[in-house]
Parts: sequence; C-alpha cells; structure tokens
Amino acid sequence: MRTVLVIGIGAGDPDMITLQAVRALNRVDVIMVLDKGKESRQLVEFREEICRRHLRERPYRIVEIPDPRRPRRADGLSLTEYEAAVRDWHAKRAKALEATLLEDVPEDGCAAFLVIGDPSLYDSTIRVVHNILDRGNVEFDWEVIPGITSLQALTARHRVPLNQIGEQVVITTGRRLTADPSPPEGTTAVMLDDALACQAIDDPGVRIYWGANIGTPEEVLRSGPLTEVIEEIVAARAELRERTGWVLDTYLLRRE
Amino acid sequence: MRTVLVIGIGAGDPDMITLQAVRALNRVDVIMVLDKGKESRQLVEFREEICRRHLRERPYRIVEIPDPRRPRRADGLSLTEYEAAVRDWHAKRAKALEATLLEDVPEDGCAAFLVIGDPSLYDSTIRVVHNILDRGNVEFDWEVIPGITSLQALTARHRVPLNQIGEQVVITTGRRLTADPSPPEGTTAVMLDDALACQAIDDPGVRIYWGANIGTPEEVLRSGPLTEVIEEIVAARAELRERTGWVLDTYLLRRE
Ligand SMILES: C[S@@+](CC[C@H](N)C(=O)[O-])C[C@H]1O[C@@H](n2cnc3c(N)ncnc32)[C@H](O)[C@@H]1O
Ligand SMILES: C[S@@+](CC[C@H](N)C(=O)[O-])C[C@H]1O[C@@H](n2cnc3c(N)ncnc32)[C@H](O)[C@@H]1O
Repeated sequence: MRTVLVIGIGAGDPDMITLQAVRALNRVDVIMVLDKGKESRQLVEFREEICRRHLRERPYRIVEIPDPRRPRRADGLSLTEYEAAVRDWHAKRAKALEATLLEDVPEDGCAAFLVIGDPSLYDSTIRVVHNILDRGNVEFDWEVIPGITSLQALTARHRVPLNQIGEQVVITTGRRLTADPSPPEGTTAVMLDDALACQAIDDPGVRIYWGANIGTPEEVLRSGPLTEVIEEIVAARAELRERTGWVLDTYLLRRE
Repeated sequence: MRTVLVIGIGAGDPDMITLQAVRALNRVDVIMVLDKGKESRQLVEFREEICRRHLRERPYRIVEIPDPRRPRRADGLSLTEYEAAVRDWHAKRAKALEATLLEDVPEDGCAAFLVIGDPSLYDSTIRVVHNILDRGNVEFDWEVIPGITSLQALTARHRVPLNQIGEQVVITTGRRLTADPSPPEGTTAVMLDDALACQAIDDPGVRIYWGANIGTPEEVLRSGPLTEVIEEIVAARAELRERTGWVLDTYLLRRE
C-alpha cells in the first residue's frame, strides 16, 4: 500500500517545524509539488531549505506536476459558471496527481505534499487528496501532520495572545473583510489580503498587529491603533515588495 | 539580563513540538510552574515527559509557584466585583512570579513557562508576563515560541481543513456557545467546553468533528451529522472520563 503524507512545514523559519514533521519527511520517497511555476521563488526556496536541513536520512525525489490554470472570478464567469469551472479544475488536478502517484511512487512507497504553515488553514491540499481518493483509481493510507501557522508566528513575534480573555476569534480573508469591513467583537485575524482591506476601517478604537514575511530574515512587524499606523504599514508593505519581490502578510484587529 | 521563554509544547503528543521549542528548552535554567496542584495529573506528566525527552543538554530545575485561588463567577460576586477580584488575582500571581524570578533565577539566567498547545490560544501566560513587566521590579528579555494547538491536532487527526473554501472560522468557548447556540456561517471551533454545549443545537444540517485527549494513547475521535452522533459523543466522553480520569476535548461545527 502507498502512503501519502500531508506535512505542515511552518511559516518562514525552517526550524518552526515539528519533530513529528521531520520524522515524516524522512519516510518520503517522492515529494509532490503542484503549481511550482506559479509560486513565488521564496516559497519554492523555503521548501528546498526544509528538505536540505531536515530530510537527511534517505534519498528522495521531487516531482513537479504542472497545474491546470485555475479559473478566476475576474474571468467574466457567472457565479454558477465559476463554481463549475473550479470543480472542473479540481478534477483535472486530482487526475494529474493520481497519474503521478501511479507512475512515480512505488507500490509500497511514500509520497508527500509539503504545505506552508498548517495544512488545515486556507490550503487546498487536504481537499485535493480527498478528490484523488474519491476517483477510486488509486488506494493509499494517508496522514496529516500539523505545522505552525503564519498566524501563530504573528502572535508569537508580537508576544500577544490571539484571543482576549474568554472572547472569540474570527479568522477571515481579505476578500471577506472588503465585503464587510466592520470587525466583529473579539479578535479578527485576516489572511490572504493582498490589498490591506483593513484600510477601510475608520474606528480609532481598533488596534492592529501586523506582520509580513514573518519568520524570514526580511520579517517586518508593526502594531498600534489602526488609524494611526495604517499609513506606515502600507508604506512598509510597498517597500518590502519593492526590495525583496514578495510579500506575505497577516494581521489581527481588535478593540483593547 | 535574565531571559524568560514562553514555550508552546503542543497538545498530547510529545513529538508535536517544534525544533525551535526543543532548542529553547535547552537554554532553560529554571522551569516555572504555576498552579501545579490544580492541574490534572496528565498535564503535569505531559510536561515532565517533554522535559525527559527533549531537555537533555543541561541541568535544569523545576520551581513550583503556589497559585493564589482564582475567583469564580459562582462565588456570588457581581460582574464588577468579579472583574476586580480577577485583576487582584492577576496582581498576586505576578508578584509571586516576580519573587521567583528574583530569587531563583540567576541574573543572566533563563526561565521558562511550558504551555500546552500554543501560548496564544486561551492561555494566560503571555498576559502574566506582561503583568510582571508592568510592575517594573524585574527586567528581562522575553520570547514566545509557538506550539501546535489542540485544534490543529484535531483537524490533522480528522484529516479535514479548518475552513471551508474562502469561508471564515470562528474560534469560541463552551460558555459562549451556551449563551448563543446558533453557529455562525463557516466553521465554528469550540474549546473549553466542559458540557458539550453543542447538544443544544438541533439542526440536522450541522456536522461535528470531535476529539478528546488528542495526541495521547487515549485519543477518541468522532464525526458525523451533529444530531445523529451527539449521543455517542456524550457517551464516549463519559466513558473516557470514567476510565482515565480526565477529558480535554475540542470540536468543529459546520454545514457541509
Ligand atoms: C494560502 S494561505 C496559507 C496559510 C498557511 N497554510 C498557514 O498555515 O499559515 C497564504 C496566506 O498565509 C499568510 N502567510 C503565509 N506565510 C506568511 C508569512 N511568512 N508571514 C506572514 N503571513 C504569511 C498570508 O496571509 C498569506 O496570504
Ligand atoms: C486552557 S485551553 C488551552 C488551549 C491550548 N493553549 C491550545 O493551544 O490548544 C484548554 C482547552 O484546550 C483543548 N485541549 C487541550 N488539549 C487537548 C487535547 N489533547 N485534546 C483535545 N482538546 C484539548 C480543550 O478544549 C481544553 O478545554
């Protein structure tokens, strides 16, 4: 029986990986990489650095699977068409991965996906594995190994709790915050926000804890009352993109 | 200058700790343990197992700090009195820890708190350290090292994503769910719920992913439509408590 491991490798810092994940890495014959062409060079390098440092006990191979183009909302599709296009894209992707498993992974071999942060958080790998299994053409055991998320790296670097005492935390996306820029009670954690959607919030009581490229040598952190520090954050973000070519950022919002 | 490390040690499985945390552990002279008397034997043993396995490079000492009794809502206090009592309790606790730092940690020494899961999630250690610093009687550098939360262990063991595609995640407590048992859109993750507050939800469209003592040899997992599996979960929880003397559990709710 083949084994598929979905391994969380943490965010930014290659030592922010668990012992469990290091052990899992060292069982791997084939690392499956989807979408490499579209990833930023930094994410590819992060994955390579993880392998260099932690995958030492046995030879392994990296197989790149060209990813079919993902449909975009901007493609001028209606919502129904868009959803159908996404389903179709998932099916194509599952098929390509299924072929790789059958052709490139020995029958008792071990394949792995290396996921930035934790595989459970805004990442499609777990769904893709379910899609492959649903097709029914290849059988395997599989495991998910958790990793430190970029949100945890954010709170650790700011040395703040994620939640206020007894309060809720809402984890959301830039797109959702743009649609409704009124943060709920408690803490709001925003990911996948290319445009700093929090700029639309004009409430002097809200504080922000922001971090970009957290865990890397280029990490930038800022915090303070949102309306006072947002301009500085916009500038720091632009400067970082200019200088290093990539920005991944996340932040918390709350009243304090 | 002294150093204080707040180290997340993961949930249940001693290998669910990061390399960064293991490295941090091996800088420690004194491990500060608050409240040991009140913790379940299992949490104490988990911490000891972490030290046995991972803290090997140098001698260390565990200092237990008796914790002043925490006020309870059930003490018959008004909300204002309760809040004042909690503030007073925080101050007493900070004072006791300050004394330990000054007396038991050498001036260039390193002290650590070992936190189950991640220090940012429903844990008071980060706030306590801020309280000690605010008193101004002892100076130190300090760092927070993230750990895998019990929620991440839950999603990994169930092999499900935390969020649905593009949707939000609300992390909340049993107390809050009891006050408002209508789960919002997206995924609701519930912690600190001694009474399975989700029993009050009577919606056949809601699915639950539940786990208790995750990561330990006694781990129990259940999932399915909430109204169909809740009785089984209540029974499994009671059986686990009966048999092992302790239950820590957490779960996700969502429409699928
Ligand atoms: C596709 S999601 C994946 C999240 C990842 N699975 C995790 O657990 O953090 C990508 C988003 O994660 C956040 N992110 C990832 N790496 C980051 C880093 N090093 N610093 C700050 N944010 C990061 C950003 O919000 C980015 O838009
Ligand atoms: C005080 S909170 C601390 C949470 C911790 N800092 C974390 O990151 O998971 C305690 C709650 O965590 C959850 N928990 C902790 N350990 C667990 C385990 N091994 N299995 C299931 N739930 C756990 C339970 O919901 C419990 O009520």
